[in-house]
Amino acid sequence: MGLTDEIGAQPAIAERLLRELPDELAPLAAAARNGRIGYVLIAARGSSDHAAIYAQYVLGALARLPVALATPSLFSRYATPPRLAGALVIGISQSGRSPDVVAVIEEARRQRALTAAMTNDPASPLAVAAEHPLDLRAGTELSVAATKTYTAQLMAIAMLAVALGDAEATEHEALSRVPDAQRAALEHADRVSVIADAHAGLVDCAVLGRGFNLATAFEWALKLKELAYVRAQAYSSADFQHGPVASLAHGGDVLAVVARGPLAADTAELVARLRKERRARLLVLADHLPFPDTLPEWLSPLVDIIPAQLFTAALARAKGLDVERPRGLKKVTLTS
Amino acid sequence: MGLTDEIGAQPAIAERLLRELPDELAPLAAAARNGRIGYVLIAARGSSDHAAIYAQYVLGALARLPVALATPSLFSRYATPPRLAGALVIGISQSGRSPDVVAVIEEARRQRALTAAMTNDPASPLAVAAEHPLDLRAGTELSVAATKTYTAQLMAIAMLAVALGDAEATEHEALSRVPDAQRAALEHADRVSVIADAHAGLVDCAVLGRGFNLATAFEWALKLKELAYVRAQAYSSADFQHGPVASLAHGGDVLAVVARGPLAADTAELVARLRKERRARLLVLADHLPFPDTLPEWLSPLVDIIPAQLFTAALARAKGLDVERPRGLKKVTLTS
Repeated sequence: MGLTDEIGAQPAIAERLLRELPDELAPLAAAARNGRIGYVLIAARGSSDHAAIYAQYVLGALARLPVALATPSLFSRYATPPRLAGALVIGISQSGRSPDVVAVIEEARRQRALTAAMTNDPASPLAVAAEHPLDLRAGTELSVAATKTYTAQLMAIAMLAVALGDAEATEHEALSRVPDAQRAALEHADRVSVIADAHAGLVDCAVLGRGFNLATAFEWALKLKELAYVRAQAYSSADFQHGPVASLAHGGDVLAVVARGPLAADTAELVARLRKERRARLLVLADHLPFPDTLPEWLSPLVDIIPAQLFTAALARAKGLDVERPRGLKKVTLTS
Repeated sequence: MGLTDEIGAQPAIAERLLRELPDELAPLAAAARNGRIGYVLIAARGSSDHAAIYAQYVLGALARLPVALATPSLFSRYATPPRLAGALVIGISQSGRSPDVVAVIEEARRQRALTAAMTNDPASPLAVAAEHPLDLRAGTELSVAATKTYTAQLMAIAMLAVALGDAEATEHEALSRVPDAQRAALEHADRVSVIADAHAGLVDCAVLGRGFNLATAFEWALKLKELAYVRAQAYSSADFQHGPVASLAHGGDVLAVVARGPLAADTAELVARLRKERRARLLVLADHLPFPDTLPEWLSPLVDIIPAQLFTAALARAKGLDVERPRGLKKVTLTS
């Protein structure tokens, strides 16, 4: 199992979650119906933290729950944990062995808050610490760069949002279409490779996204750093105009995930302006990198990240880099 | 009033807030005592968003309140605002005219949640929309890059944290020492200039921080982008090891804010490792850039940012840039 296999495994994992996760989500849905959940607090690092950004939007929009991202060091190092009454506290970690994420869940249980854990290993310390472990069922991930774990996390979060909200039939139907949409995105691998070859000189860039796909911009930028050694910096396209745009060199590279829905016009307008005023070289996910746009916006991050993964892996190869052994990285980083 | 004057005005503004803000904070302190505040939700953009990162730590540690950063587009564009029962909702905006931040406060009032607004203009739409306006008293900020507004926001947030927590005499005493500590930091401007001149070739860098000073790293990186056109990317030093380190070129530049307190050893160890294994060129706030380390860690961000501001302004001048007119920026950016 190398990176290519793990990217290719994503639709089958989404199918498995659709079949098997609902039983694990049921007690959390019951807690929401009983008014036990006032807001959600998520502890995560790395790619899992980008899944948490998606959770802010999808739990906000579908379940109308505010989502806070935890500051793990307040729990693990400063010994001044916040009070968590009314919170559903979720730890997200591929390995389930990140000590600071485990510390948040352990403190939440001590305070008798509702706890859940999304991990790839039901025997991990994080899964054991949480009252409600949610198994991501993605199988062992060998590549240092997370791909199938990331979309498994998004799928579990989307299913959780539907379960905690006033689930509508249209939402369940849309969820069921995710695996096929992911499969269709994977079919464009060759075309994406050609585009990546043309970008072999890419050394730094801004990556813009907004709304549900802000998570896609952050995750794409992290893959670019890990695999292709590109100094890629992700921004909300709204924040980018508040200062960072000054650091964009004339003719600099900008990658953008064009949002659908209510923010589409804003992003398109910004992209056009960067092209005209700053002569930016633009690579737009949706325009240049093809993928099937068949899902509602709230599920689009589960598909949009696939051409970004394919592009980044192909770019790393075009640069002659070893995608299985990025410099300076280990699969599990233990920060506490 | 140019940038240099605004940087120099910070101690006097902190003094004014110490004298005049407590009256405006009193009703919020009463609400906390009556158990009305379960958690805090903050809406902000740009430098104000970095003040919100500081709020996550200081409100967590002193008032034991979890802090969520709002996703304004859920309120302003998607028309699916989360339910805000139990929240204290705070909008932070220099101008008080950011439409998406105003939208969050207006929705929170509609839901009868407790609302506050930190702005420089008590007549602004944000101040008018909030039940409890908190006037930052920083005076008109003419420079595009926020400096005195940022530390005024940190001061108001630190005072709020003390007011909402079980205020101890030592905390009030520490707050009263902020203006003098800021004055002492300003006295090192000449020495900082010499260091900035030696970095005139800086074009990209990582900026690392953690805990209370994660906000300092983010704010420093934004100033570097706005004023000196450096592609500076801020990271939690914990997150940096989870992937982004791969994108650091051999001999690349790393700026670091060394935390005091429980995280000091971790940051120092990471800095040493980057120097040894990656031959990184390091500029460490505390080691290379001097400032008076006389405040407890939770107040240190109010002083640490000052040598970073001085360094960045001097660097911009060393590069021959006009700090009053950064390319592509306006003082007030209206995103909705």
